[in-house]
Amino acid sequence: MNRILAAVMPGPGLPIEIREFPQPALEVGAAMLSVTLSEVCGTDVHLHSGRLANVPYPIIPGHVSVGILSEIRGSLVDVDGRRLREGDFVSFLDVHGTCGRCWYCAVAHATTRCPQRKVYGVTYGVEDGLAGGWAQTIYLKPETRCISLELPNPETFMAGGCSLPTALHAVQRAEISIGDTVLVLGSGPVGLSIIICSLLRGANRVLCIGGPAARLRTALKVGAHAALDFLEHQDTEQIEWVHQLTHGRGADITLEATGDPTAVAKAMRCTRDAGRVVVVGQYTDHGEVPFNPHLDLNMKHLEVRGCWGADFSHFYRAAQLMSDTRFSTRWSLIPLKRYSLQNAGAALASVAQGADHKALIDPHLPMA
Amino acid sequence: MNRILAAVMPGPGLPIEIREFPQPALEVGAAMLSVTLSEVCGTDVHLHSGRLANVPYPIIPGHVSVGILSEIRGSLVDVDGRRLREGDFVSFLDVHGTCGRCWYCAVAHATTRCPQRKVYGVTYGVEDGLAGGWAQTIYLKPETRCISLELPNPETFMAGGCSLPTALHAVQRAEISIGDTVLVLGSGPVGLSIIICSLLRGANRVLCIGGPAARLRTALKVGAHAALDFLEHQDTEQIEWVHQLTHGRGADITLEATGDPTAVAKAMRCTRDAGRVVVVGQYTDHGEVPFNPHLDLNMKHLEVRGCWGADFSHFYRAAQLMSDTRFSTRWSLIPLKRYSLQNAGAALASVAQGADHKALIDPHLPMA
Amino acid sequence: MNRILAAVMPGPGLPIEIREFPQPALEVGAAMLSVTLSEVCGTDVHLHSGRLANVPYPIIPGHVSVGILSEIRGSLVDVDGRRLREGDFVSFLDVHGTCGRCWYCAVAHATTRCPQRKVYGVTYGVEDGLAGGWAQTIYLKPETRCISLELPNPETFMAGGCSLPTALHAVQRAEISIGDTVLVLGSGPVGLSIIICSLLRGANRVLCIGGPAARLRTALKVGAHAALDFLEHQDTEQIEWVHQLTHGRGADITLEATGDPTAVAKAMRCTRDAGRVVVVGQYTDHGEVPFNPHLDLNMKHLEVRGCWGADFSHFYRAAQLMSDTRFSTRWSLIPLKRYSLQNAGAALASVAQGADHKALIDPHLPMA
Amino acid sequence: MNRILAAVMPGPGLPIEIREFPQPALEVGAAMLSVTLSEVCGTDVHLHSGRLANVPYPIIPGHVSVGILSEIRGSLVDVDGRRLREGDFVSFLDVHGTCGRCWYCAVAHATTRCPQRKVYGVTYGVEDGLAGGWAQTIYLKPETRCISLELPNPETFMAGGCSLPTALHAVQRAEISIGDTVLVLGSGPVGLSIIICSLLRGANRVLCIGGPAARLRTALKVGAHAALDFLEHQDTEQIEWVHQLTHGRGADITLEATGDPTAVAKAMRCTRDAGRVVVVGQYTDHGEVPFNPHLDLNMKHLEVRGCWGADFSHFYRAAQLMSDTRFSTRWSLIPLKRYSLQNAGAALASVAQGADHKALIDPHLPMA
Repeated sequence: MNRILAAVMPGPGLPIEIREFPQPALEVGAAMLSVTLSEVCGTDVHLHSGRLANVPYPIIPGHVSVGILSEIRGSLVDVDGRRLREGDFVSFLDVHGTCGRCWYCAVAHATTRCPQRKVYGVTYGVEDGLAGGWAQTIYLKPETRCISLELPNPETFMAGGCSLPTALHAVQRAEISIGDTVLVLGSGPVGLSIIICSLLRGANRVLCIGGPAARLRTALKVGAHAALDFLEHQDTEQIEWVHQLTHGRGADITLEATGDPTAVAKAMRCTRDAGRVVVVGQYTDHGEVPFNPHLDLNMKHLEVRGCWGADFSHFYRAAQLMSDTRFSTRWSLIPLKRYSLQNAGAALASVAQGADHKALIDPHLPMA
Repeated sequence: MNRILAAVMPGPGLPIEIREFPQPALEVGAAMLSVTLSEVCGTDVHLHSGRLANVPYPIIPGHVSVGILSEIRGSLVDVDGRRLREGDFVSFLDVHGTCGRCWYCAVAHATTRCPQRKVYGVTYGVEDGLAGGWAQTIYLKPETRCISLELPNPETFMAGGCSLPTALHAVQRAEISIGDTVLVLGSGPVGLSIIICSLLRGANRVLCIGGPAARLRTALKVGAHAALDFLEHQDTEQIEWVHQLTHGRGADITLEATGDPTAVAKAMRCTRDAGRVVVVGQYTDHGEVPFNPHLDLNMKHLEVRGCWGADFSHFYRAAQLMSDTRFSTRWSLIPLKRYSLQNAGAALASVAQGADHKALIDPHLPMA
Repeated sequence: MNRILAAVMPGPGLPIEIREFPQPALEVGAAMLSVTLSEVCGTDVHLHSGRLANVPYPIIPGHVSVGILSEIRGSLVDVDGRRLREGDFVSFLDVHGTCGRCWYCAVAHATTRCPQRKVYGVTYGVEDGLAGGWAQTIYLKPETRCISLELPNPETFMAGGCSLPTALHAVQRAEISIGDTVLVLGSGPVGLSIIICSLLRGANRVLCIGGPAARLRTALKVGAHAALDFLEHQDTEQIEWVHQLTHGRGADITLEATGDPTAVAKAMRCTRDAGRVVVVGQYTDHGEVPFNPHLDLNMKHLEVRGCWGADFSHFYRAAQLMSDTRFSTRWSLIPLKRYSLQNAGAALASVAQGADHKALIDPHLPMA
Repeated sequence: MNRILAAVMPGPGLPIEIREFPQPALEVGAAMLSVTLSEVCGTDVHLHSGRLANVPYPIIPGHVSVGILSEIRGSLVDVDGRRLREGDFVSFLDVHGTCGRCWYCAVAHATTRCPQRKVYGVTYGVEDGLAGGWAQTIYLKPETRCISLELPNPETFMAGGCSLPTALHAVQRAEISIGDTVLVLGSGPVGLSIIICSLLRGANRVLCIGGPAARLRTALKVGAHAALDFLEHQDTEQIEWVHQLTHGRGADITLEATGDPTAVAKAMRCTRDAGRVVVVGQYTDHGEVPFNPHLDLNMKHLEVRGCWGADFSHFYRAAQLMSDTRFSTRWSLIPLKRYSLQNAGAALASVAQGADHKALIDPHLPMA
């Protein structure tokens, strides 16, 4: 059969549909990826609620995927110059088209803010081809960056999935010192990956404020030393809890990964004077919130760093971690749930409700 | 005559009074400084309005001063180990008592947040002795850090005064690159010193949003390339103005030195993606203000750094700059106005209204 | 009995002797520490061979020790302001007297280069009192920085001992990223601690070149991924080995901890272009060695950082690590051997020959 | 006339010859640059002596040039997205072909070590086309990065020329603080640009050790505070001179720009403890030299940074500086000498002898 099935999001709020696409012809440097698994993440929820700008609906969601290279036209090499072959099991960086030549790329070295930057499954839509992972096959455009994976099983990589490069970028920007107490706000996939990466990076203790209870149990399982349910404690209690665990000073480093704008001022209040806050959970616009510039920032001599996206280096390091069981076992504690293409809408609903830790689309699952 | 006159602030809102103090006996390591000039700055205005915490009223204000060492008990050495002598013309670091032993000093290396830290003229009061500069003489406690100055005249140092170490700390924390466009919010003494220091540090262009008009003229005189009056333009116009001058991107670096909490979110909006904001103007609590964590911080991949106080290294570098006419001439463009001890209240009122660029107490001016 | 026994090093090359000292009277702020264990380290070997400058022989060696506070005159508080009590089990920072006021301390913030800095057991001699750990009791001068330890047993702390703060400083200066391949030159106590700390700090793989074989086995046990005996392979083979394990590029980060000056150029050659080398093993002068500024440094765009001493923050973090079995178990794999005071000379000889991994003086062991 | 004249270096040691080339056909994205001026620099001397690796002789030297775009095929845009036009006066980054995709580019972010990187006039030879500046016309390959210049005259840009991006990279890597004393070793074009950039970046004083006398006079003219002739003083005297001018401590920052490998150890010895050395003068292999790892590096807690090449950001900032007379006037103090194409060999000889400060090829000068 020559038709390719994909789950399409026609527009904000509209139900996900299965559509058929013809087999595309390949340009030189392009390849087809037969999808093994593709992620359903918080970004997809935002896409469905219409909260992201510049999305060319209809789109095939799914920005982080693993699969098998089923066809390559011309030569495809990895970052070490090794040639990739048909049949290789790979993942690819969802970010594509970063130009390397504009002012942000070439002068500011801030490539995640390149205006040419596109993201498979987010800012590439159906018009751009089979450019999302909730499909039987993805069309990998020329210059897409693939990494060949040697793993015990495909889930290994997806347990980190799209949250891991984001978490690695945030933790890199956090500059944790050996011995620091790190606070993580949020216990979704990004929060959980940040907990693990903070421990890998030398944190003495990691505290987590998140929810619901099942996710907090996972937070403790992957290594957090203490966890507090934000649904059961008011902000002042949460801040007090952190201070009690840190000699009254607050955390050395706080990483915010909640999606809730009020968490940003809370992050500042939970952090010790001359500490550091990384804000990585505010990927969509939820409006303005209040903060106190004197008490929360200036008098504290605090440093607050926004963190947007990830680049190839983070994706590369994510693949390194996941290819080594010493590291990947920590992520294997995060429960995964598979959905068929036909059930992509249900997967999305489950992620929106926080019912699943992490949902995956498996296009080989029977559709009915 | 053995009585020492000083201008005393009895409490918030109360008029400044002249009081007489007896000549104190010196401990070993202490010294008496016969005041030549002492500054009246924005902090003193805040002290008078009761906006600073932990102030032990009544106090003798005046934290940055120059004068002549009139008496030394024991040995007093400078940072290079050179012995200071009676008759030397010196200034001293207003910060005293930083312990070097607490967790903030010894583990976090964040000495400006040491809980033992005291400031002459601010957190030392009359109970602590002659510990402020609006007086004929200051009692320099043991371990006070003096620097001997060789200057054409006393005003040279005071033109930088207490704003310069603060500005040096802020500019150091801003990490300007050669070629950057720097935006300074505020045109008071700290703002003006930041303009000059940003240029010294390699800024290609410095823009200033401040007021009133006379201060903006001074901003241009000391080197700003363009200036905008915040009283005559709304926030959106100000932000638009910055973007027009920066290829639509915003400033590479913004330093906030206004005292107005709404300036902090404005600083973020005036700065380019992946740029940096230093907040140094929020020394007192003016309550909460709104900002947008997604648009102002996370999506911009922005870095925001609070900056509190200064340490000896900033004071030392300030004295270096002021001892070299290549640098001090830039500050000599800032108009100074002298007041007698008796007119300290008038000086304070003038600074509160922004009428003077910088007011100085000269205890040798006739009192009547 | 009121006499205190100590092992004294009368001068370079002279045999260690047991001497008796009278019980000293305590100044205010001083304390007596009844020694439980004190370390015999490479520095002591250098002291005995006369390779260190400014050593006031005769000295009581032993700079890192643990013991029980047997007497306190006045109040002794720790860094968190908690009062220490007689009977507490503590260690103390061997560095004492850093002035906080000189140019290096106050302007350069380079406190390990303070000219006033003294080290117990190294630059304090018998003239300065009971100022070394190879003794029944140490006299802790006022301003000595103690940390109270809660440990399963005294060995726990000494397994890190004096090597750990040094290693923490070096690893902090190395700025390892998650995923890096780290090369450690040297497998003595500092090298072993660097291996563990590099893993704690996110290294993906740690390679070790050292010897003899027993130490390399320990290197592998504490987490190194591969080890090579420098006695059995020439420099070119060693460099080739590293390149083979790193896609031909060299290690991302190399930490030199050997004591052999030729290891410094080798470190550069084993490191990838734009990587980083930290030199922490050159504590004594072994003369000049050749290197190639073009090939080893400039063309490689390499960064080489000397690392001298440690400060309280490193000691504090060392104590944190050792107070937590998650971390201390890694160090517990390093074999320790105890010697009586009388056998201090034998301990020294054993360390000099690399026969013991780490030797400790236990003044409670029977002397005969 | 349709023939293009160029000065060709046939191989190491062989005389420069004038050759004629046919007018090439342009690929899409390529352009022809009618050369106004092209530089003769130290690299060209090294090329002629055969000291650089991977040079595809015969070559047309001349890596930094200015000229007029005489023909553009397709669209050519600058970094801000503005379209360049035929007739525009431009310069271009000599580095070409950095891939953005290899491990050095994409993971290490060390683009100056990209193996694909090529340099006009150095690693592009006659086989690659008209790829050097000592010619009437340069063929600008697609993806060459041009900057449009608005200058009073062409010399303005060339006074910085190829030394300025190199100097900017080195000074950026030096992380000078306001108030630092900077030592520059070398007074050739790179050394002189480093002197000016160090002052722009906040150095309080810049010392220079170089030669011959005429260049030292220029060093003082562009802002150095003191200069010493290395031909007239031995190394020990030079080191002593620096210490005398720096309270016996050494320079805070030293930048080496000499080409002489013995200058690297000297740079370490002239720098204060915990200071920083940037090595930017070792572009060719002059063999091994001795240094003392204990005294020169480890005990000093010194940081030594190699610095290779420059990227577009440095070139962009160089063009910014030269487009503003506030900055360019400093460089205009460096004497330039023009040579015809026919006299390129004489220009090279003059630069080799240090007779000219800076030599330029002007292809419009009459040949005879």
